[in-house]
Amino acid sequence: MATPLRIIPLGGLGEVGKNMTAFEYGKNIMLIDCGIMFPENDMLGIDFIIPDWQYLRDKSDWLRGIVITHGHEDHTGGLPYLLKEFPDLPVFATKLTRGLIEVKLKNHKIMETTRLTTIEAGGRLDLGPFSLEFFRVAHSIPDGVGVGITTPAGLVVHTGDFKFDHTPVDGKPTDFAKLAEFGGRGVLALMSDSTNADQPGTTPSERVIDAAFAQVFREAKGRIIVGTFASLISRIQQVANAAMRNNRKMAIAGTSMVENVKMAQKLGYLDLPNDLIVRLEDTKKMAPDRVVIMTTGTQGEPSSVLARASVGAHPQIQIERGDTIIMSSHPIPGNEEMVHRTINRLFQRGANVLYDPIAQVHVSGHASQEEQKLMLNLVRPEYFIPVHGELRHLRAHERLAHQIGILPQNVFVVEDGYPVEFHEGEARIGERLPGGHVYIDGSGVGEIGPAVLRDREILGRDGFVVVTLRRDPERGLIIDKPEITTRGFVYVQEAEELLNGAGDVVTRVCEDSSLSDRAVHDKVQEALASYFYRETKRRPMIIPVLL
Amino acid sequence: MATPLRIIPLGGLGEVGKNMTAFEYGKNIMLIDCGIMFPENDMLGIDFIIPDWQYLRDKSDWLRGIVITHGHEDHTGGLPYLLKEFPDLPVFATKLTRGLIEVKLKNHKIMETTRLTTIEAGGRLDLGPFSLEFFRVAHSIPDGVGVGITTPAGLVVHTGDFKFDHTPVDGKPTDFAKLAEFGGRGVLALMSDSTNADQPGTTPSERVIDAAFAQVFREAKGRIIVGTFASLISRIQQVANAAMRNNRKMAIAGTSMVENVKMAQKLGYLDLPNDLIVRLEDTKKMAPDRVVIMTTGTQGEPSSVLARASVGAHPQIQIERGDTIIMSSHPIPGNEEMVHRTINRLFQRGANVLYDPIAQVHVSGHASQEEQKLMLNLVRPEYFIPVHGELRHLRAHERLAHQIGILPQNVFVVEDGYPVEFHEGEARIGERLPGGHVYIDGSGVGEIGPAVLRDREILGRDGFVVVTLRRDPERGLIIDKPEITTRGFVYVQEAEELLNGAGDVVTRVCEDSSLSDRAVHDKVQEALASYFYRETKRRPMIIPVLL
Repeated sequence: MATPLRIIPLGGLGEVGKNMTAFEYGKNIMLIDCGIMFPENDMLGIDFIIPDWQYLRDKSDWLRGIVITHGHEDHTGGLPYLLKEFPDLPVFATKLTRGLIEVKLKNHKIMETTRLTTIEAGGRLDLGPFSLEFFRVAHSIPDGVGVGITTPAGLVVHTGDFKFDHTPVDGKPTDFAKLAEFGGRGVLALMSDSTNADQPGTTPSERVIDAAFAQVFREAKGRIIVGTFASLISRIQQVANAAMRNNRKMAIAGTSMVENVKMAQKLGYLDLPNDLIVRLEDTKKMAPDRVVIMTTGTQGEPSSVLARASVGAHPQIQIERGDTIIMSSHPIPGNEEMVHRTINRLFQRGANVLYDPIAQVHVSGHASQEEQKLMLNLVRPEYFIPVHGELRHLRAHERLAHQIGILPQNVFVVEDGYPVEFHEGEARIGERLPGGHVYIDGSGVGEIGPAVLRDREILGRDGFVVVTLRRDPERGLIIDKPEITTRGFVYVQEAEELLNGAGDVVTRVCEDSSLSDRAVHDKVQEALASYFYRETKRRPMIIPVLL
Repeated sequence: MATPLRIIPLGGLGEVGKNMTAFEYGKNIMLIDCGIMFPENDMLGIDFIIPDWQYLRDKSDWLRGIVITHGHEDHTGGLPYLLKEFPDLPVFATKLTRGLIEVKLKNHKIMETTRLTTIEAGGRLDLGPFSLEFFRVAHSIPDGVGVGITTPAGLVVHTGDFKFDHTPVDGKPTDFAKLAEFGGRGVLALMSDSTNADQPGTTPSERVIDAAFAQVFREAKGRIIVGTFASLISRIQQVANAAMRNNRKMAIAGTSMVENVKMAQKLGYLDLPNDLIVRLEDTKKMAPDRVVIMTTGTQGEPSSVLARASVGAHPQIQIERGDTIIMSSHPIPGNEEMVHRTINRLFQRGANVLYDPIAQVHVSGHASQEEQKLMLNLVRPEYFIPVHGELRHLRAHERLAHQIGILPQNVFVVEDGYPVEFHEGEARIGERLPGGHVYIDGSGVGEIGPAVLRDREILGRDGFVVVTLRRDPERGLIIDKPEITTRGFVYVQEAEELLNGAGDVVTRVCEDSSLSDRAVHDKVQEALASYFYRETKRRPMIIPVLL
């Protein structure tokens, strides 16, 4: 009996972010990507989320290597945490991707111990029973690749993140020929990027942004500040080009962007003449119409340069009337409100803020429906597994696959943890592996679970009331008045009556001196909950403390 | 010296929602609209927000009346709260708008005491020195009006919410002739809806939805469930029409929608034949392809019908494979994540979910840029005040006004509380009036302020630690071990060591028996904060309780 090939989505299927896939054949596992995801609005206090790789935990012997397709956080950000568990895991990435990973590994102080190997588009690599061929994909960062994986069960093509940009900024379009060649060879399964599967048409080329920048640079009378992702290297090049054409100097603000630019420049992915770049502090002495500042913060993250500048809290960037600010990114789903708040605050400080759709200063890096159909038709796979997206995106991508003629039973829409198994010419969805979100909160990894988050939700919504009681150990009666401590529930200075009433409720419950401590605890909790709900229609967390 | 006319935005300028404007001349005030707004994601535990009308509080003698332009929540929802403070305030609304307001007043038990008067498009009304002319506007609810207000200072035109839909569902387009007539007469100031001021082009007609519905109804093999706003009366009519054409029966789920439909039907704004409507419970016995269920919940509100159905928690609607669900609305800014989560969960239960842009099952009710320019050109005002929108929308609308030739110094972009004053041929922005958001939380109105919200934010992010101490009143030393209570900070079962360490920290601080209670409190707080931050990189709220 032959060995099955198992494709195991560990992240990115059922959400946008924390992409990670495992390919398993016998006692061999290879991995693609290991990203992070922004927390959702009700994951209170969480910094970010990494994939749950507990399935790999007892299989470190099986791990042959991990391929990182490109340098974005949702494909690289989890890698340091993975490497802390599996320090021997070989990491394969193209030159720029590797450079960006190195920045990360240095910050985590695991640069020296990590086994890094550079790969290139058009190259090959054998990892145990897997034979890999890397092909160029256009995306919103240079040096991205997809992977063709020849396995004993057949050829599987994983696109990574891609779009079919015919005029990318770096001049390197997605490798149509290789995809067609795979198609000719016969592809068992295609795994293709679904992020924009609900967007009709074709995603515009990165090149259209040049026209928008040209107009803005021509018209701006003061400083220009351009915000984008720290890893959007090609956008930084576009801004640099516009700056040179318009006789402006460019400064870069934000640690992560400064580090990435340094790395990309060193590796030849950014062409920034020496006389173009100035230090941020020097821009203050320059004529405003000679300055461009390139920075981060277009997702409204409170600690970012743009968010701090928008509330007047950045030490070096004071927003002034006459500034033109370009938000060269789209809000990541869930960040809309923070992004719009930042934009509104920048307007309040007198800046003119340009963002899509006001001006076409950003385009998506992901294929839209017509490109997704082209990918499907080039590769002509027997089976199709849509990847990278919420369930609604995967379902929309499924519909496209039906339209181009893939058999409905050959499309596997699965979320994280559901392996797709190929065995003796058959394919099926296997049993769900245990797993979920792993939350990073402060210095803790994975220790915050649903119980703590539920508590935070209750606390965030209605606050808490702690009532401290001392009971006479002999007679069971309470000593002194109960002490009530509350935060986030009511405005205490105006709630004296309410809280005195609560004290009376507690005293009344405790009149029964025969109750056990446990019973007092439960009855006090119950009585206060119904008292407070009756009086305020709120449900604070109520915690009796018996000393 | 003549009296100034003061236009005072009390809500809706600087945010999307809670629209309210006051017009003041001498000791006369008339009001337009009084809406609510959904809380932003970091306004934890808040149900909704109403305008801050404290400026009116000592001027109840001056109030001549309030005009409600249409029946949406962001224009009507605050009215019951306003009327509780000003029960004598006369309310003026068109027939349908009045009907929808009555539903609300009955729920608040103030229907009998409210002075309601029906007005109509094309009609007139005098309120003290203000002479009002109402004109029809097309919007996503029937019977909407704008108002031309002849004041001693000149004619002010307020559009309400509008679009220039040439083929509205109720056959009643915006009254171009009246707007042109105002323009000919000479308009001092235009106040026009900015919601879509960053959207190029023209908003599609409500009619395009019919085509999308026709296709969905033709192709759906099982039940169809259509979600939309409870007040979107014309959409309910469109669904009813599609149901009749396709031989399906329609049930309505959701209290607010049932009440609104009843009212709209009674007043003649909905044409639903008796044999079309079935009870929700009866749909269970019918063939799925004969059923349409019309319901609420397209904003993902957890208590709504669709959100409950998406988690299997609705008593009468179980989502099944084969169901087609149409989300006939767009997410209100800030609700995107909850909406998408609901869509994903409905997919998980096997339904096919259709939403814009997957299918054109919703269009906006607000004018886009070309329509806004048409409004400006029809009315040709001397001054322009963009209304209804975040600052970024107001600024985008300002740019359009510049483009069509309104003098830059005659455009007033103001946020809530900044009065625009017209006096002896001059116009200027007056001093800011005190005011802000008024939060509704449970049964409380306005008692939750920034302090409580800040506490909720801290609690929601990192939880709390209460440490209870008993000091010997004589010797100053602590009695017993300090009692530590924590929630939302760490997973207590795995944090024994951390919490024991905290006890030691406290004991050490208290070794100095000469400290005052206040000093012990502060030192304990400080020492625990730095201990916990060092150990966890988190900042829980720390509350020492000294008994």
